[in-house]
Amino acid sequence: MSDLLKPHEDRFFDPDPTVRRFARDLYNKVKNWPIISPHGHTEPSWFSENKPFSDPTALILIPDHYIFRMLFSQGISMESLGVPTIDGGVVEQDHRKIWQLFADHFYLFAGTPTAAWLSHEFYEVFGIAEKLTSKSAMAIYEHIDSQLKKPEFLPRAILERFKIELLSTTDPAESELEHHKTMRDSDWSGRIIPAFRPDGVTDISRPDWQNNLAKLAATTGMEIDSFDRFIQALEQQRHFFKTMGATSTDHGVLTPYTCELSRNEAENIFQKACAGTADKTDALKFTAHMLMEMARMSVDDGLVMQIHAGSFRNHNQAVFKRFGADKGADIPQKTEYTKNLHALLNKFGNNINFNLILFTLDESTYSRELAPLAGHYPAVKLGPPWWFHDSIEGMKRCRERTIETAGFYNTAGFNDDTRALLSIPARHDLARRVDCNFLAGLVARHQIGFEEAEELIGELTHGLVKKAYKLEKF
Amino acid sequence: MSDLLKPHEDRFFDPDPTVRRFARDLYNKVKNWPIISPHGHTEPSWFSENKPFSDPTALILIPDHYIFRMLFSQGISMESLGVPTIDGGVVEQDHRKIWQLFADHFYLFAGTPTAAWLSHEFYEVFGIAEKLTSKSAMAIYEHIDSQLKKPEFLPRAILERFKIELLSTTDPAESELEHHKTMRDSDWSGRIIPAFRPDGVTDISRPDWQNNLAKLAATTGMEIDSFDRFIQALEQQRHFFKTMGATSTDHGVLTPYTCELSRNEAENIFQKACAGTADKTDALKFTAHMLMEMARMSVDDGLVMQIHAGSFRNHNQAVFKRFGADKGADIPQKTEYTKNLHALLNKFGNNINFNLILFTLDESTYSRELAPLAGHYPAVKLGPPWWFHDSIEGMKRCRERTIETAGFYNTAGFNDDTRALLSIPARHDLARRVDCNFLAGLVARHQIGFEEAEELIGELTHGLVKKAYKLEKF
Amino acid sequence: MSDLLKPHEDRFFDPDPTVRRFARDLYNKVKNWPIISPHGHTEPSWFSENKPFSDPTALILIPDHYIFRMLFSQGISMESLGVPTIDGGVVEQDHRKIWQLFADHFYLFAGTPTAAWLSHEFYEVFGIAEKLTSKSAMAIYEHIDSQLKKPEFLPRAILERFKIELLSTTDPAESELEHHKTMRDSDWSGRIIPAFRPDGVTDISRPDWQNNLAKLAATTGMEIDSFDRFIQALEQQRHFFKTMGATSTDHGVLTPYTCELSRNEAENIFQKACAGTADKTDALKFTAHMLMEMARMSVDDGLVMQIHAGSFRNHNQAVFKRFGADKGADIPQKTEYTKNLHALLNKFGNNINFNLILFTLDESTYSRELAPLAGHYPAVKLGPPWWFHDSIEGMKRCRERTIETAGFYNTAGFNDDTRALLSIPARHDLARRVDCNFLAGLVARHQIGFEEAEELIGELTHGLVKKAYKLEKF
Repeated sequence: MSDLLKPHEDRFFDPDPTVRRFARDLYNKVKNWPIISPHGHTEPSWFSENKPFSDPTALILIPDHYIFRMLFSQGISMESLGVPTIDGGVVEQDHRKIWQLFADHFYLFAGTPTAAWLSHEFYEVFGIAEKLTSKSAMAIYEHIDSQLKKPEFLPRAILERFKIELLSTTDPAESELEHHKTMRDSDWSGRIIPAFRPDGVTDISRPDWQNNLAKLAATTGMEIDSFDRFIQALEQQRHFFKTMGATSTDHGVLTPYTCELSRNEAENIFQKACAGTADKTDALKFTAHMLMEMARMSVDDGLVMQIHAGSFRNHNQAVFKRFGADKGADIPQKTEYTKNLHALLNKFGNNINFNLILFTLDESTYSRELAPLAGHYPAVKLGPPWWFHDSIEGMKRCRERTIETAGFYNTAGFNDDTRALLSIPARHDLARRVDCNFLAGLVARHQIGFEEAEELIGELTHGLVKKAYKLEKF
Repeated sequence: MSDLLKPHEDRFFDPDPTVRRFARDLYNKVKNWPIISPHGHTEPSWFSENKPFSDPTALILIPDHYIFRMLFSQGISMESLGVPTIDGGVVEQDHRKIWQLFADHFYLFAGTPTAAWLSHEFYEVFGIAEKLTSKSAMAIYEHIDSQLKKPEFLPRAILERFKIELLSTTDPAESELEHHKTMRDSDWSGRIIPAFRPDGVTDISRPDWQNNLAKLAATTGMEIDSFDRFIQALEQQRHFFKTMGATSTDHGVLTPYTCELSRNEAENIFQKACAGTADKTDALKFTAHMLMEMARMSVDDGLVMQIHAGSFRNHNQAVFKRFGADKGADIPQKTEYTKNLHALLNKFGNNINFNLILFTLDESTYSRELAPLAGHYPAVKLGPPWWFHDSIEGMKRCRERTIETAGFYNTAGFNDDTRALLSIPARHDLARRVDCNFLAGLVARHQIGFEEAEELIGELTHGLVKKAYKLEKF
Repeated sequence: MSDLLKPHEDRFFDPDPTVRRFARDLYNKVKNWPIISPHGHTEPSWFSENKPFSDPTALILIPDHYIFRMLFSQGISMESLGVPTIDGGVVEQDHRKIWQLFADHFYLFAGTPTAAWLSHEFYEVFGIAEKLTSKSAMAIYEHIDSQLKKPEFLPRAILERFKIELLSTTDPAESELEHHKTMRDSDWSGRIIPAFRPDGVTDISRPDWQNNLAKLAATTGMEIDSFDRFIQALEQQRHFFKTMGATSTDHGVLTPYTCELSRNEAENIFQKACAGTADKTDALKFTAHMLMEMARMSVDDGLVMQIHAGSFRNHNQAVFKRFGADKGADIPQKTEYTKNLHALLNKFGNNINFNLILFTLDESTYSRELAPLAGHYPAVKLGPPWWFHDSIEGMKRCRERTIETAGFYNTAGFNDDTRALLSIPARHDLARRVDCNFLAGLVARHQIGFEEAEELIGELTHGLVKKAYKLEKF
């Protein structure tokens, strides 16, 4: 991996000289443009409190399920990686020891986007010109650790240094957005906006549903004892999120099934859920109906609606019971959009002020369902490749399978969708490079002209993101 | 897009110099070969009446759902594009204004096959060496408009100029083929043949089924009051179509499900359909049985059977109610062939005189189902990439995923499948280029020899088309 | 095909000079490494008896369904190819005539892996520098025929010449492994090991189930009159296979559905199967439960578990009735892993000594299900592209869609999975070339360094195979 000490300036570009030259020229245009991050999972508290990050392992490794799932898959226990247990059971506390274990197994990431992001991050953020190996592990740890103590590595300073012009967090519907309030009331000029994610209160099959509902009641000051009041509370919170800068909502569902219930049916299921007697079918119908309600509200209040569908969450029950959610054990499953979104699109899909951004983990839907939907319905936009597919080959497949049908202008640019703050520039840089390379291929095959490619790379980097997420005013 | 003023002579070829050289050499062999178009949707009346086309907007834009769906997806109403409504409600009538709107948004097509076809068409058919933009819109309109008034732009002259050796239309089972008759009786030497498409009378769930059946009765002069008479009427019409030159039938189905009913069951469902009491399950079974009947008839009369499966028609009900079918709102859905075709293939698949050409909108079936079926059953041939997949990347995926299993010789060459007459040479040219490029890649990677590639490009361009569609006698 | 007389030394490599140079350098490292073949279908009797093969047609054509299915798909009867019928009905016996027919149609294989393997085999094994055509057919036949009579073409000599360090056969659970015993007791040093394949006794829907069970009883000397005894008999045979060198089991299932039955339910179904009254649902449940039992036993005895799922066997019933199984009429169908393997993985997937190697014919599962499962569960490893996908493009797709999520180290290297003995070196050579080319692409795009690629090609060729199949001790 010695060649990777410094990430190569032509990395991820096609080796063909014609393609590479065009790719480089396009990349030079956008490489220094600010970052717009319209969807992600960083913690608002980092920026409101602006405290230093504790150490490399706590910042880079322990919260990143991309990293520890790979180590786990090779027989390394999560305990030895310091991943905290739910019941507070003992796990490794020595962060240097954990870092060493990580470095000993860094070769496992060869060919993965995680390796690409980390190389970029080590070099660009920390100036590390040495490869992470068993031998270099401790020197690198100490180097990063000492950097993190400097003022220029405080969260707000990092944001500014990364030229992140706008960053959206993702926040539960019942949130009081206290950190966002603090930031708003401060004199800091960074733009951190919330996004409204109501899954905790719209998915009645979740064990924490009643708790979440109670929080929603507390936050809104409403007694939520009926479906109508539930809807009012959600509308009120959406309004509140908007006043705090939100431009979008986000919906994580197993299936994008949509279906309109009568007011009576909805009330009925809601009451069963309150009584703890709702079953699986109730939950499926309720989520399907709530997607309809959310689309209706989006048509009313203008918030952009994102649907992230198709992840079988917490597939590994032993891991879930011991360590909780988001531990690298979410496995995609087949997902269907054409029939499932029929109800929603027939009611709201022709509304030209409604933006519905679709994400998938099932790549077979790109050319079969998503591109045709985006290439017809005014409301539908294609989100960027998500999660496992946020990778060089994943992005390539997405472009190759969707652009010919949907065109570039029905897509939504890039999201980093990450909780790994330090990887944000690496992820945007990789996406820009892959887009430049894709466009360069079109130019080299004489499908578009170079000037057209220049226009398009600007759109993919900024224009389409702002339009899809209604960020033009920023 | 300035480079596109004149379509580049190496367009769509790989930029690698080795591949490009082989591709160019192969292309030079077939670029001027006549066009054989064994499946498409042009209007027979154009050629029987041979009247001039009215204007650019009416010819190029209004009938082409590839174009207006993309504009619609970006919020431009179909009314403003002059798409006629069913009830005659007012839509834009100023064809210059519509053309301007189209030109203003032509950038939306960057990277789509529509852009590639239109560039070719503008340059090759009309000699336009200017890019379609807001500014050039009217000059281009006037230029095309004046050309269309010349005798060399009459439909028959266009066909001859395009070197279209044979063109198949697609005609309802109940058709009297009056335009085909007129052409046959004329002294014109053009070869326009019909294809037998019985969906209107085999899909009992269609609202127009009874009407279509009544027309079939009128055309055949039979009283169709039983399933047996229905079958006889179809057999009679197939015979009639054959006498008019047809070599194929075509079946558009949501699913390729096949299943043999007893004569009693079939009769039963037919009577329910006549009485207007058949339900969805009846319709599914009836279509499944009719595919069996059609295969049986093909074995008897030698007509090649085409199945186009997997499109959820008229997904957008508001558009359907206002503008009718074929308005860019047909969305593919998951399609299954292995189990669904089991009945049909077990009864007729080993018959070496039966040609069954399969088409899909679900690319996940290429390597999983279609190539293995074509690589085993004597009757099965793979149709070319269909509709959304009739594109550079779409064709590449199809070849990459099917040839290694099915070989080239179980495929059926190219279809343009279009109602856009002027785009026919562009579509065949694009397909020839992509095939040359695919073969060039095999040569460059030493998988086949150049002489073998030369043989194969001839087969893909003419030989396999003639064989699959039984056009050898032409 | 004249260029193919001698397979080109750079075959299957990308034509781009940068990629090709790296690919060649990587290939030079491993091209002469011995072959490890951990999964395949050669006959153990060949090596225990070491008799000469009879003639080219009997060795190369008649047993290879890759070859005769392609000829059959083009209307050539299996009878004329000498494929034996079940009832001994007359088929062509003149092997020269059959070979001629094959040669006449060899052009059908252009672009298929069969053509690539045969070119390699003809040149490298038999020194044939002439293309197989109608004209050369007989000369080539005579040449191969005379070679096969030489001592260096006896089965053991072939194995040694091919540098096959280890070869696994696949053997029914009820086998006495007599040929393996003979080899063990001989002084021959070749390593032929069995693999335990219990489908014949775990799939109660098979017509030969009761026969197979009776054989299992005979082999084990047990009276198998209860489910518990059945389990004991299997455990005993697994132990016996291990003593004969087996390191793995193999399970061919239509669906990888797993589900634990109670002891009572299992007993119940087993008794129904013995009485011949079990239905389809019973069979589905029983297979699902037996996969759980097999995983449990693997955790206990350490045998690696392989699952090959998704083939609709004997799709063409006429062919099956006349010629039996494995006649090129097995067609893949959609396969689901995420939900189906949930029970098995939740019980055994976190066990770090359990190796579960998954194979698929449904490529849509690569990125959606298999790579995420392998990238999380310690037990799961990805098998190489199987059957139709054991090809240049198939391998490329597999790497492109899985490595970014699963990494290289959760994969299992290459299997040839063949009964075509002479094609083994050709298949391993092709796989090594495609892997070198894939790694070369990563190097050329600066995703990995060249030294890292060198390490990885060693792992893909030997290291990962040995680890996944627990062959380290060899």
